[in-house]
Amino acid sequence: MNPIRKPRLLLSNDDGVTAKGLNFLIDVLVPAADLFVMAPDGPRSGAGCSLTSITPTSYRVLRDEPGLKVCACSGTPVDCVKLALDQAMNYMPDLIVGGVNHGSNASINVHYSGTMGVALEGAMKGIPSVAFSLCNHRPDADFTPLQAYVRDIVARTLSVGLPPHTCLNVNFPDLATFKGVRVCRMAKSSWTHEYVPCPHPYGGRHFWLTGTNENLEPDADDTDLWALDHGYVAITPTAVDVTAYALKEQLKSVFK
Amino acid sequence: MNPIRKPRLLLSNDDGVTAKGLNFLIDVLVPAADLFVMAPDGPRSGAGCSLTSITPTSYRVLRDEPGLKVCACSGTPVDCVKLALDQAMNYMPDLIVGGVNHGSNASINVHYSGTMGVALEGAMKGIPSVAFSLCNHRPDADFTPLQAYVRDIVARTLSVGLPPHTCLNVNFPDLATFKGVRVCRMAKSSWTHEYVPCPHPYGGRHFWLTGTNENLEPDADDTDLWALDHGYVAITPTAVDVTAYALKEQLKSVFK
Repeated sequence: MNPIRKPRLLLSNDDGVTAKGLNFLIDVLVPAADLFVMAPDGPRSGAGCSLTSITPTSYRVLRDEPGLKVCACSGTPVDCVKLALDQAMNYMPDLIVGGVNHGSNASINVHYSGTMGVALEGAMKGIPSVAFSLCNHRPDADFTPLQAYVRDIVARTLSVGLPPHTCLNVNFPDLATFKGVRVCRMAKSSWTHEYVPCPHPYGGRHFWLTGTNENLEPDADDTDLWALDHGYVAITPTAVDVTAYALKEQLKSVFK
Repeated sequence: MNPIRKPRLLLSNDDGVTAKGLNFLIDVLVPAADLFVMAPDGPRSGAGCSLTSITPTSYRVLRDEPGLKVCACSGTPVDCVKLALDQAMNYMPDLIVGGVNHGSNASINVHYSGTMGVALEGAMKGIPSVAFSLCNHRPDADFTPLQAYVRDIVARTLSVGLPPHTCLNVNFPDLATFKGVRVCRMAKSSWTHEYVPCPHPYGGRHFWLTGTNENLEPDADDTDLWALDHGYVAITPTAVDVTAYALKEQLKSVFK
């Protein structure tokens, strides 16, 4: 980090540019950093790492002040990061931050998470990246208990960096205070009972996504779900490389 | 696999239910398996593991014949798998197959791929899952060279199974014949020059996604990109667990 200037951060999310969680993040980080915000122009929950290729992607500038520029993008969280880095910013940020998401992105939800899409896209670009999520889906969720932790995790990540092609998935339990942080692995979990009918007056087969997420290893104390269930902030280091290395060796005898 | 019946397969893709690659897959697999197809009602390229939660998801039945049922879904590839397993099918398939995708899903493209979204969702449900992709984006791409390989990889996967929470990402080079198959790891690569302007008559900032994918380790002969560049079919075993385990140990001294 260059000592003669403030760190420069790119922020995005998947709940959209007006979401409380993103604006909490801006308020917490703007005193100590220059912020460039490129966020979707509306909710993109469940966007994962999806991107827009069939139609053009657009952005417009909502605020442009010293130390804070805010843009709204027509695309997904990944589009936001790509478009910011490739077109809208004229520098590389020191850190990319996603969130704060309204809802958990722990365990297998990492795959569906647009907030983690932000961090994974940053990691693919070789920039240290962190995603923050609070286990509370409500639009008016209270983010104030996260304040000191968000500042501290951002400062430490800026200080030590992250290896290329990795990022951090940080989840907060929905509590007023936390017992501390735990560096975790992703818990194995499973979604069941995923749909309920959504009857349409003209008939047809319409369904709402809902469901129950079951921790398949509730006794393992090194997982993100265990940490959250026990009052800790869960920091799960996450890799761009999704190769199943153990299986790779086994399969060499199957596919020759 | 139950010997008294044909294997039962769930098929989906991200190019949509009318895509040539999906219909090639149906033609290749229907003689030896009962097929349930739930595919998006239009193109969903770049859908990754995204899902639909803000609006309902719907499907309609297009064909219902002995051994072949075809449904079109309003949602993403992941929605297709979830809705098929939770609502539309009354049994669990022996195998889930995504594709054949029009275009490569090797290296980091796994994260953006709706075809791999199909396979990862299957893996999350504990069902052996395979995604097939051809390195040719054209709607009229020639899939015939893949025929024997697709049959063989499906048969072997049905026979040996896959460990829970893993799946296969199979990519074919755009060639008339292949040198064989190689079990690979994901290459490190990077997308650059990702956008070109798409001027709108009324102004604004509009861009088309494009870009160049650079292999960051071109000399490593154990990657999917190396295999494809050298005429081999690349089979990359892929994990649902994206924990960066080496980093997890390092970070324990940073976040205490």
